Amino acid sequence: MSFSTKELAELDQRFRTNLINSITGFKSVSLVGTFNNNRETNLAIISQIIHIGANPPLIGLLFRPNVVVRHTLENILASECFTINHIKRDFLKQAHHTSARWSESEFTTCGLAEEYLDDFSAPYVKESSIKLGCTLAETMDVKSNGTHFIIGAIEHLHAPDTFIGSDGFVDLEAAGTVTCSGLDSYHQTKKIARYTYAKPEYEPKEV
Amino acid sequence: MSFSTKELAELDQRFRTNLINSITGFKSVSLVGTFNNNRETNLAIISQIIHIGANPPLIGLLFRPNVVVRHTLENILASECFTINHIKRDFLKQAHHTSARWSESEFTTCGLAEEYLDDFSAPYVKESSIKLGCTLAETMDVKSNGTHFIIGAIEHLHAPDTFIGSDGFVDLEAAGTVTCSGLDSYHQTKKIARYTYAKPEYEPKEV
Repeated sequence: MSFSTKELAELDQRFRTNLINSITGFKSVSLVGTFNNNRETNLAIISQIIHIGANPPLIGLLFRPNVVVRHTLENILASECFTINHIKRDFLKQAHHTSARWSESEFTTCGLAEEYLDDFSAPYVKESSIKLGCTLAETMDVKSNGTHFIIGAIEHLHAPDTFIGSDGFVDLEAAGTVTCSGLDSYHQTKKIARYTYAKPEYEPKEV
Repeated sequence: MSFSTKELAELDQRFRTNLINSITGFKSVSLVGTFNNNRETNLAIISQIIHIGANPPLIGLLFRPNVVVRHTLENILASECFTINHIKRDFLKQAHHTSARWSESEFTTCGLAEEYLDDFSAPYVKESSIKLGCTLAETMDVKSNGTHFIIGAIEHLHAPDTFIGSDGFVDLEAAGTVTCSGLDSYHQTKKIARYTYAKPEYEPKEV
């Protein structure tokens, strides 16, 4: 099946939303922990996450236009900090449930525990194995659709020793981190291969 | 294991690169097809891909600083178009091999076939099932580390009918699309669940 710009524009909105949200490939998905000016916490599931750089360690998050209430974005802009918490299968349903419109903290309503580490102000998710504490480094506006691109500096990184290899590679599969596709589909993974650094002289070999 | 900003900065560079590249979660990974002013084609594997929006359909790609030769970025800026081609297991090794420093087209050196569709100028990968033809919509510079963020408008979308559901959801798992973690690890997926649109009134149910 093929769709041109014009055909995409004429699609039923729900169909197009599912189609375009799934067509970019499998995505990172995490819970973002924040707090507001009254120190009320918030937890939101987000799949628009991108690696920005390793030195300095930076991560990017995209948020929809700030026209309705967007607690997470507002909280990040106000407090200038947030946490990223990987999602495991055993609390996946609670993680998905954070996307409902709650008036109270999703930590309470969805049954996940707040955790505070290293005197960092933003709440981590206790149930997560891998978690990042980030401060706001930069905000950018995407003119094409009015979304907001947030760059976070990774100030704290927490991951169990057993999942970190001698080369620094984190075995997300062993850690039970899930991936997602589209708006609502979650997947576990099965490793195919790690390959050697690619050179023209020889074919990639399995590490 | 925990790392603070200072500890991250003091890590061995290779260790830090692996650590931070894997810590954001599983990633979208695709082959980006472009051509230069002499109509020579280029193919590059890229995992810094993010969904930007469905209406209009937009996708984002991040590129490292343009200080050494970066054919893909240069080609996109010059021609203002590119393709995104999902990677399947049966040509994964060739896909990884495109990341070597080739002086000729990776289509030739890595053994993947160019395909041209709908009079679109940029080359698609014939072996891919799911592919997007994009035009350059916007470029942004990330001040924090000098990377370049490119927004592409999806002008053409190609995916086999059998993988597109009645609600528009694309079954990437059935299509054999792989995901990656870190710089060099590739994974297939196994679906856990699709959940209903989350509401406070009830727990998410499986679709």
